[in-house]
Amino acid sequence: MSSIAVLGYGVVGSGVVELFYKNKESIIAKAGTDVDIKYILDIRDFPDSPYKDKFVKDIDVILNDKDVTVVAECMGGVSFAYKFVKACLEKGKSVSTSNKELVAAKGAELLSLAKANSCNFFFEASVGGAIPIIRPLHKCLAANDITGVAGILNGTTNFILGKMINENMGFSAALKMAQELGYAEKDPTADVEGHDACRKICILSSLICGRHVYPENVYTKGISDISLEDVRYAEKFGCAVKLIASMKKLADGRILPMVMPMLVPHDLLLARVDDVFNAVLVCGDGIDKAMFYGRGAGMLPTASAVLGDVIEEIKCGKCTDISQTWEDSADPSFVAGHEESINKIYFRISKTDDIGIKAIEVIDDSDDMVFVTGPMTLLDAENLGRKLSESGVNVKAMIPVLDI
Amino acid sequence: MSSIAVLGYGVVGSGVVELFYKNKESIIAKAGTDVDIKYILDIRDFPDSPYKDKFVKDIDVILNDKDVTVVAECMGGVSFAYKFVKACLEKGKSVSTSNKELVAAKGAELLSLAKANSCNFFFEASVGGAIPIIRPLHKCLAANDITGVAGILNGTTNFILGKMINENMGFSAALKMAQELGYAEKDPTADVEGHDACRKICILSSLICGRHVYPENVYTKGISDISLEDVRYAEKFGCAVKLIASMKKLADGRILPMVMPMLVPHDLLLARVDDVFNAVLVCGDGIDKAMFYGRGAGMLPTASAVLGDVIEEIKCGKCTDISQTWEDSADPSFVAGHEESINKIYFRISKTDDIGIKAIEVIDDSDDMVFVTGPMTLLDAENLGRKLSESGVNVKAMIPVLDI
Repeated sequence: MSSIAVLGYGVVGSGVVELFYKNKESIIAKAGTDVDIKYILDIRDFPDSPYKDKFVKDIDVILNDKDVTVVAECMGGVSFAYKFVKACLEKGKSVSTSNKELVAAKGAELLSLAKANSCNFFFEASVGGAIPIIRPLHKCLAANDITGVAGILNGTTNFILGKMINENMGFSAALKMAQELGYAEKDPTADVEGHDACRKICILSSLICGRHVYPENVYTKGISDISLEDVRYAEKFGCAVKLIASMKKLADGRILPMVMPMLVPHDLLLARVDDVFNAVLVCGDGIDKAMFYGRGAGMLPTASAVLGDVIEEIKCGKCTDISQTWEDSADPSFVAGHEESINKIYFRISKTDDIGIKAIEVIDDSDDMVFVTGPMTLLDAENLGRKLSESGVNVKAMIPVLDI
Repeated sequence: MSSIAVLGYGVVGSGVVELFYKNKESIIAKAGTDVDIKYILDIRDFPDSPYKDKFVKDIDVILNDKDVTVVAECMGGVSFAYKFVKACLEKGKSVSTSNKELVAAKGAELLSLAKANSCNFFFEASVGGAIPIIRPLHKCLAANDITGVAGILNGTTNFILGKMINENMGFSAALKMAQELGYAEKDPTADVEGHDACRKICILSSLICGRHVYPENVYTKGISDISLEDVRYAEKFGCAVKLIASMKKLADGRILPMVMPMLVPHDLLLARVDDVFNAVLVCGDGIDKAMFYGRGAGMLPTASAVLGDVIEEIKCGKCTDISQTWEDSADPSFVAGHEESINKIYFRISKTDDIGIKAIEVIDDSDDMVFVTGPMTLLDAENLGRKLSESGVNVKAMIPVLDI
């Protein structure tokens, strides 16, 4: 008999409890042992819940109960979650979390703590919601040199861009609709400005390169200045505008993670990922390309990923999974800046006689002049933009084209 | 130190050896122990191979070497592969195979044998080539009731259909091109008539429902009578014609696996899977929908999947993975026939005044009359086709529309 504790009874936590009891019988069969949820930690009262007898407010009840071998952390945020997860791991209790902020900020430390206490810190739910990506990356693709990933890792921004692309809706109206539908927070900064996607690409990058990649070292640009004009011109160039969180291995061994709106060519399946769905394209020397697609958020999808980890832990016992880990790294010099990224670049500028370079495609049918350059570094692209500005040209947009 | 034996040095086997030595250092890091390939079994001589000292022709050398803990079976076919895999498992050596024919024919027996000998029979490479699907299904999605899958599981037929869709090439010309490119065998029956896809949906269905689903109980129809006209009309209905291997759970607990060409609506990402790529769409009560996409065949992609299993085995030791299994089943009554499948149906017939039902969409702009019905069982669809034929109408095509 294994006992589970669920920390936090918000959207994800209540989803974990609901999905567990819905499929308890088959979960027990897959885990190979009897399993139950013994505690749910929340500061609120739920007197009408069918699980009311399981609620506790004191983490020590969970920490001191030897029956509890695995804990599902669904509180979110860093401060309390970090404290509680750390205490659980120190007690040798494995943790499964959906908390990307926690993993991106404290992953290396918590992974090391799990190893020291012969248990696991699992986080499949922290990237791509329901999408299996963490376990496939470090297990199924273990024979590969992973050379790059490019993902749509934020459902809110993908929903907004989808409304702009498919329904000609402006950014503000699309954001408002996302908020009304519950896809975006009242303060949408973390989604819209790319911080959420940044945490997720940090987690994937850390897992792939084996060293902790901190969000503050990753260039992050959101979608708030993407205009309908750019979305329309992108279509003319055979591309969809998507917020792409990407990571590439460079020839010198450094990695280049970044979050930016990009033009994604339609012949990549990523360009077709609509609505609030997420997807991660992975490139490796064995697989060539693989893509993982599904719901990136939501109650039951996220619960599915949390519980997948919980079941794995119960099945395998307290054997630390050594391929799901990375080291801490005080020196961030293995992380290259976005200026080194080499891409074709989409420019939209006010009309001018000379754009200073030979563009590979130009559209010149409006007040604007729109062109796509050949491959250049983002540093060169920024210099080109600056030169154009200095010569009196209004540079209205500059968006890299995804190349993977 | 763990030693690997590779059975068969054809395309997949030589890929396993190549990819292993390319990434040996990181493979050892992920396995957590020193690893090497000790033997390669092949009846042929490879005097110029850099691995020539590893070749053996006698399986007993491998069976009797206690250093060998895991065996990569890359021979193909059933007779010898079955005999050798069985012998390995009886000796407690885990096996990783890419051999879908073997898994579809003998999976239950070999899984049971692995369990009895405290080792594993792994087969990630047998479905979808490089695509991680077996492990994600039984691990990452373990908390879900999987209600259905629909996959493009044969690259050859997808390549042929792609040429028909995108380049207006007829079936025979596209098949010839696939043969010239090495995508199709000289005798293309297994691919073109759907037998290869059938084996793969049998494996997925067995894993999902926990009982061995044998190919002979699964309705299988290939693509050899798909015409360019149908591909064109499908586009007009907003669909792509794809060879779909699918499985649905029915309300009474039975499952309905089948392989058929289907019209796939463009709003499903499956419709956009082109070239020789494969993809599997999975539906579950937690995840809603997830899709896994990648190369379904080829030397290094398949090797990647075989080695993923090998590394997992070495990492975890001889602990039988109890969620990756199913029971044998002499009684196939849990497998429903395709007649019970409920789909909208695309019909292309010679012109007639009365098609006998109310169609939801009709195109009537040529010699043919083309329509899509409302949802009906395939039994009713076949009866409708028969009735039309009896009344003198030429029923030229009848293709279900994928509904998942």
